[in-house]
Amino acid sequence: MASDSEVVVNNKQVILKHFANGAPKESDLEVKTSSISLKVEPGSNAVIVKNLYVSCDPLMGNRMKNLGIPGLSYTLESPLEAFGVARVVDSGHSELKTGDLVWGAVGWEEYSLINNTQSLFKIHHTDVPLSYYTGILGMPGITAWAGFYELAAPKKGENVYISAASGAVGQLVGQFAKLMGCYVVGSAGSKEKVEILKNKLGFDDAFNYKEEQDLNGALKRCFPEGIDIYFENVGGKMLDAVLQNMRNHGRITACGMISQYNLRQPEGVHNLMNIVFQRIQMKGFFATDYFHEYAKFLEVVLPLIREGKIIYLEDIVEGLENAPAALVGLFSGRNVGKQVVVVSKD
Amino acid sequence: MASDSEVVVNNKQVILKHFANGAPKESDLEVKTSSISLKVEPGSNAVIVKNLYVSCDPLMGNRMKNLGIPGLSYTLESPLEAFGVARVVDSGHSELKTGDLVWGAVGWEEYSLINNTQSLFKIHHTDVPLSYYTGILGMPGITAWAGFYELAAPKKGENVYISAASGAVGQLVGQFAKLMGCYVVGSAGSKEKVEILKNKLGFDDAFNYKEEQDLNGALKRCFPEGIDIYFENVGGKMLDAVLQNMRNHGRITACGMISQYNLRQPEGVHNLMNIVFQRIQMKGFFATDYFHEYAKFLEVVLPLIREGKIIYLEDIVEGLENAPAALVGLFSGRNVGKQVVVVSKD
Repeated sequence: MASDSEVVVNNKQVILKHFANGAPKESDLEVKTSSISLKVEPGSNAVIVKNLYVSCDPLMGNRMKNLGIPGLSYTLESPLEAFGVARVVDSGHSELKTGDLVWGAVGWEEYSLINNTQSLFKIHHTDVPLSYYTGILGMPGITAWAGFYELAAPKKGENVYISAASGAVGQLVGQFAKLMGCYVVGSAGSKEKVEILKNKLGFDDAFNYKEEQDLNGALKRCFPEGIDIYFENVGGKMLDAVLQNMRNHGRITACGMISQYNLRQPEGVHNLMNIVFQRIQMKGFFATDYFHEYAKFLEVVLPLIREGKIIYLEDIVEGLENAPAALVGLFSGRNVGKQVVVVSKD
Repeated sequence: MASDSEVVVNNKQVILKHFANGAPKESDLEVKTSSISLKVEPGSNAVIVKNLYVSCDPLMGNRMKNLGIPGLSYTLESPLEAFGVARVVDSGHSELKTGDLVWGAVGWEEYSLINNTQSLFKIHHTDVPLSYYTGILGMPGITAWAGFYELAAPKKGENVYISAASGAVGQLVGQFAKLMGCYVVGSAGSKEKVEILKNKLGFDDAFNYKEEQDLNGALKRCFPEGIDIYFENVGGKMLDAVLQNMRNHGRITACGMISQYNLRQPEGVHNLMNIVFQRIQMKGFFATDYFHEYAKFLEVVLPLIREGKIIYLEDIVEGLENAPAALVGLFSGRNVGKQVVVVSKD
């Protein structure tokens, strides 16, 4: 405990009040104020950070539940954990100094005490928006990069389909695929998002899955010769339709299945025999498995941002008070682009 | 057409009378006798072979249907095509001589005219049973070898589960896995097969899936720490149970889904989210994609057979007349081991 009362400040937090049952609700969370010392204890190599931006990611909805998967669930009465961008306020760590900017796992709160400093990346490049380190230059960026280039092993001219294509990850996969010379189609859940895919993000085609009577037919229309790479973000009926439209030796990168997370029983997928008949690879992954390649990733992506060859859509809300609604909104597709919460502007 | 009537002989054939609707039935096939010239036309590089053994493989049931998959279905009124062992009777091919033994794609008939000689492998080693070239030394052997070593990338000590484990492929995967130092459990559909797995084939454990109320529970009992590699031969409910028991970074080799082939609608698989959460790889393949590695395969497997380090169970029926029942029996698990049909003993 800090002995100097001057360094103890109020700390607004978003805590898990009870485990979510089905779709996460705002009422599962509570915004409350506790206090925190801004001085690291002597001898500790922890850091204390002031959070500037925190991220809303679909996986957080699962972590709000009690699914019985070891290490997954949040702790009751504790702040949610998420990726964030923060400034170091005090540090017992030799490589992190007061004033340094970092991104990594922080709490949904104004200030976080971080013992596991290995999960923090120091931010060296500030000529791009700092919020990008929760998105294109953070976890979603590495997800798109590893999931597309490493798992899907794309080749020029291949047919690429992306669901949830205007989201934090999908929008990047589509742009990476276009840069590689692929034919790229995305789906999303509103007319506005479809327009963005076609007119802002450079997709060759896009459709609103909510307006399609028959997903199989929609995919056959967009891909008369079939799909080589499917970047899977939604699961369920969409996956079933995709399996009917994959080409031989097609690859499915299983990044997420957001349509399934909040169902009491996930939908049944019937067309898995096509995995055998078309010799399909389907592979799940976590971005964290690729964090060791972050420097290599930055070398590729930073120049693309600076040269305007890739853009990134963010949906930014202000204040931790508005964070619960932003997180819940992910599951109804309320956000347009990467959902970010501003915690503090300085 | 051959001008010399002396070389035209009767040719018993098993032909497709009409496409199968659901499970293949004996009545979909007809045994009839046509005639064939035993002389290759001058200038052709085809061969004529006398078939000694032909194979019954699960995929043949799908080829008997009109599934609309290009190149898959058999031709009505023509003999079924299958892997077989044969002796060359006449040859226009420079590397195949009369008397040579070959294995590859032949017809379900006494004699076959083979234009596509690229699909034939010359048999050089006859100190092992010739029928093995429809099994352990043919397509099922390469399937087990490529599916286990190449697709599943096994490591010593890993936990391996095999469904349809006493079948043509499964029995080999289990023995390969034991040789590598894995913990190996198989499932099959009778007490007799379970005994064979444990007592003849050296599996660490085995269970009769028909006697388990709860497949998930059976797998948890056999694999309290989870499954690293699943060699998938059956699909449906079994796959769903396996997905609940895979370890992180587990691999599923999708070789076949025999429980699903004859259903009007395949069963829904609900636990695909685990592919994301456990970062699972699931991969389909055909043995033919690995036929170019056949020489390498033989170098590994022939010594294992000769040294008695690996055994191979065959279920042999005599005569093309009995071939339809043998093929149909695959789908009810009637066979014990690799199902082979003897066409001729000389």
